[in-house]
Amino acid sequence: MIVTLLSDFGDIYPASMKGVILSINPEACIVDISHSVPSYDAVAGAFILKGCAKYFPSGTVHIAVVDPGVGTKRRPLAIRTESSTHEIHFFIGPDNGLLIPAARSIGEFEVYEITNRDLFRSDNDISNTFHGRDIFAPVGAHITKGIDIRSVGNRIQDFKDMDFGESKIEKTEDLIRGKTIFIDPFGNIITNIPAEIVDFKAGDILKIGKKQIKFMKSYGFCKIEEPLALIGSHGYLEIAINQGNAAHFFHKKPGDRITIRKIT
Amino acid sequence: MIVTLLSDFGDIYPASMKGVILSINPEACIVDISHSVPSYDAVAGAFILKGCAKYFPSGTVHIAVVDPGVGTKRRPLAIRTESSTHEIHFFIGPDNGLLIPAARSIGEFEVYEITNRDLFRSDNDISNTFHGRDIFAPVGAHITKGIDIRSVGNRIQDFKDMDFGESKIEKTEDLIRGKTIFIDPFGNIITNIPAEIVDFKAGDILKIGKKQIKFMKSYGFCKIEEPLALIGSHGYLEIAINQGNAAHFFHKKPGDRITIRKIT
Amino acid sequence: MIVTLLSDFGDIYPASMKGVILSINPEACIVDISHSVPSYDAVAGAFILKGCAKYFPSGTVHIAVVDPGVGTKRRPLAIRTESSTHEIHFFIGPDNGLLIPAARSIGEFEVYEITNRDLFRSDNDISNTFHGRDIFAPVGAHITKGIDIRSVGNRIQDFKDMDFGESKIEKTEDLIRGKTIFIDPFGNIITNIPAEIVDFKAGDILKIGKKQIKFMKSYGFCKIEEPLALIGSHGYLEIAINQGNAAHFFHKKPGDRITIRKIT
Repeated sequence: MIVTLLSDFGDIYPASMKGVILSINPEACIVDISHSVPSYDAVAGAFILKGCAKYFPSGTVHIAVVDPGVGTKRRPLAIRTESSTHEIHFFIGPDNGLLIPAARSIGEFEVYEITNRDLFRSDNDISNTFHGRDIFAPVGAHITKGIDIRSVGNRIQDFKDMDFGESKIEKTEDLIRGKTIFIDPFGNIITNIPAEIVDFKAGDILKIGKKQIKFMKSYGFCKIEEPLALIGSHGYLEIAINQGNAAHFFHKKPGDRITIRKIT
Repeated sequence: MIVTLLSDFGDIYPASMKGVILSINPEACIVDISHSVPSYDAVAGAFILKGCAKYFPSGTVHIAVVDPGVGTKRRPLAIRTESSTHEIHFFIGPDNGLLIPAARSIGEFEVYEITNRDLFRSDNDISNTFHGRDIFAPVGAHITKGIDIRSVGNRIQDFKDMDFGESKIEKTEDLIRGKTIFIDPFGNIITNIPAEIVDFKAGDILKIGKKQIKFMKSYGFCKIEEPLALIGSHGYLEIAINQGNAAHFFHKKPGDRITIRKIT
Repeated sequence: MIVTLLSDFGDIYPASMKGVILSINPEACIVDISHSVPSYDAVAGAFILKGCAKYFPSGTVHIAVVDPGVGTKRRPLAIRTESSTHEIHFFIGPDNGLLIPAARSIGEFEVYEITNRDLFRSDNDISNTFHGRDIFAPVGAHITKGIDIRSVGNRIQDFKDMDFGESKIEKTEDLIRGKTIFIDPFGNIITNIPAEIVDFKAGDILKIGKKQIKFMKSYGFCKIEEPLALIGSHGYLEIAINQGNAAHFFHKKPGDRITIRKIT
C-alpha cells in the first residue's frame, strides 16, 4: 500500500516518520510529495497536495503535516474520500484546512477526529512537537493495514475548511482578477483562476499591469525569456517566462492579487 | 529488508549507491535519512543518525557516509548493535565516529573492520573517492541478504569514538551550560543537554545572554515570533522561535557554547 | 522493476509522475537520480544520467525529463540499449540529446519515437506542459510491465545526438585542454577529459592558469583547503579542493575551457 508524505520539515525529520511507518507496515511503499512546503504555510501545502493526490492509485494514504499548532489543542484528523469512480483516498494531518482542498477535489469526504491512543506510538513516547512521527505516521500506517477509519475516533463536521479564494474571482468580458496561490520551483506564477473559466485562445494578447504577454499552449512556443500566460499542468491559469523566472519579473508572491486584461 | 542512507553528498551521488544496492538485493527498501549533512561534518551526521535510526524496524541496515578521509588509510566499519528488547540494527560507514552515537544509543554494539574484498564492487571498479558506492553500499546490501557480519572482517576495539560533549555539561540549581550540536531546517537550536537533566517546568522564565525566554511544551503555546525553550523531539533541550529562526536570532551555530539561566 | 527519475523539476512535480507510475504498476520501485538538474540544462542532465545509469540492474527503466521544448514538436523517445554482457536498460524522455550519452555508454542502442497514444494518460488529460506526467511516466511504467518497446512507435535514426566534446580535447606531452562539464554538489570541477587519456601519476605537479596543484589519488591525501586534480568517481579528470569548493576557487562554471599543464 502506498503512503505519501508532505510537510514543511525540510530534511531529516521525514526519515523518522518513515521508520515508524515501516515498523508498523513493512510492505508500505512511501512516496515523498514534498518536504519543502514554505514553513508553516498551510495554503501552499494544501495547493501542492491537491495538485498531486489524484494521480495516486485508489487506497493511497496521504500524510500531510504543515502544522504550526502542533502540541496545542488543534485536532488531528483522518479523512476518507471517494470519487465518482470509487477511487478511495485517505488523508491524515492537522485540522487547519491543509487536507480539505485535496479531499474535496477527489469526491465525497468524511472527516474523523483522531482520538484513539492505541494507534499512536506508545504513550510515553508522544512528543509535544512532532505529531508527524508520533501520531500521524502510525495512524496512517495502521490505515494501510486495513483498519476501519471509524476506529480512529468520531466523525466531525466542524473541521477547519480551506479554499483558494475561487469564489472571489472577478470576471468580465476582457478581464479576470484573481490571486497568486503558489510560485513553483521554476518561478512560474500559479493563480487561483481555474481553466474552466478561462476563454483565451492561443495567440491572444494579454496585459498584466503594463506588461504585455501572449496566451500560448506551452512555454516552448515563445522565445527564450519571453513571458506568456497558459493553462498549467495543475489546471489553473499560470504566468510564466520561457526558461525564465516569472515571479521575479512580475514581482509576484503568494497571496498577491493579479489582474489579466485581454487586448485583442 | 530496509536500508537507510545518510551522507553529505547532496544530490546525484546517492543514486549510484541505490543502483549498486538494488543490483545486489532487488528487494531492498531504501530510505533516505538525509544527504544534506553539512559537508565533512561527521558530528552533525552522527547527531542526525542517532535521532532517526531507532525508529526503524529490527534488521535495518544504516549506511552513513560523511567521510573526508575517503581513499586514505581510515578504515571502513560495519557495526552490529542489539537493544535490550532484541532489536538489531547494522551500521556501515567510515571509522571517524559517525556511526558510534547511534549504535550506542540502541544497545550493546560490536565493531568490525571491513576487509573482505569479495563483498566490494569488483576490484577494478573501486574508486579512490567514492567508497559509498564501491564499498559501503555493496557491503550493506550483502548484510540485508543475511550474511554473518563476522564475514566482513575482524572485530576491532580501537575504533574512533564520538560523543556530543555531554560529560562537559555544567549544571547548578539555576543554570545549565552546554553547547549547540545542530541547527535544524527550521533554525531551531538543538543543544547537547539531554531531557533527563532538564527540570524546568512549562511557564518558567529563562535567560540566554540578555534575552528572556519561556520554557514551554511546544511552539504553538507562544505568540508568533516569540522565543522559547522546550524539549525537542530528539530528546534534547532546544531553543526555538515560534514560526521563526532561532539560530539567526540568537546568533548560534553548531559548536557554540550556550548558557541557560532560570530566573523564576 | 526499477524506474529511475531524473529532471529539472525541483520539488513537487516528480510526485505526480510517481503517482502515475504506481497507478499503472504498483510493484514499481522508483528511485530518484536527481530533480535538481540546472533548469533547462540538458547537457548537465545527460552527464548525471550517464554517471548513474550503469549502476542499476538489467531491466531498469530510466525516465529523464529536462525538456524546454515540451508541448512543441520535439519528439518523445524510448530507447533500448544492451551491454556486451546482455544487461538491458531503457531510457524514456525528450529528443534533445539528454538520453544519448547514457544509452551509448551502456551499449548498442535503438531509438523509437513514442507515438502510441494508448500508452499515454487518457487523451483529455494530456497537458501541454507536463509530458513527464502525461507521456513519459505512463510509457515508462508500461515498459516495466514488459510491453515490447516496438509498440511505442517507429524506430528512428535521426534523433538529436549529444556528446561532451571529447573529440575536441587537445593533448600534448605536458598539456591537456578540455572543458568543464559539471560542477558537483561539493563544488568539484568535473571535466570532459576521460581517465583513459590521463597519464599523470600521484604526486605530479600540475598548473591550471597560474595556480599550482598536485595530482593525487583522493582528497584526503591533501591538506584541508589544498587544491588537487584526481580521477573522479565518474571516470573523468576532476579538479577539487580538499574540503573546499574548487569551482569558486578556480572561477569555473559548466562550459568553461580548462587547461592543465604538467610541471614535473
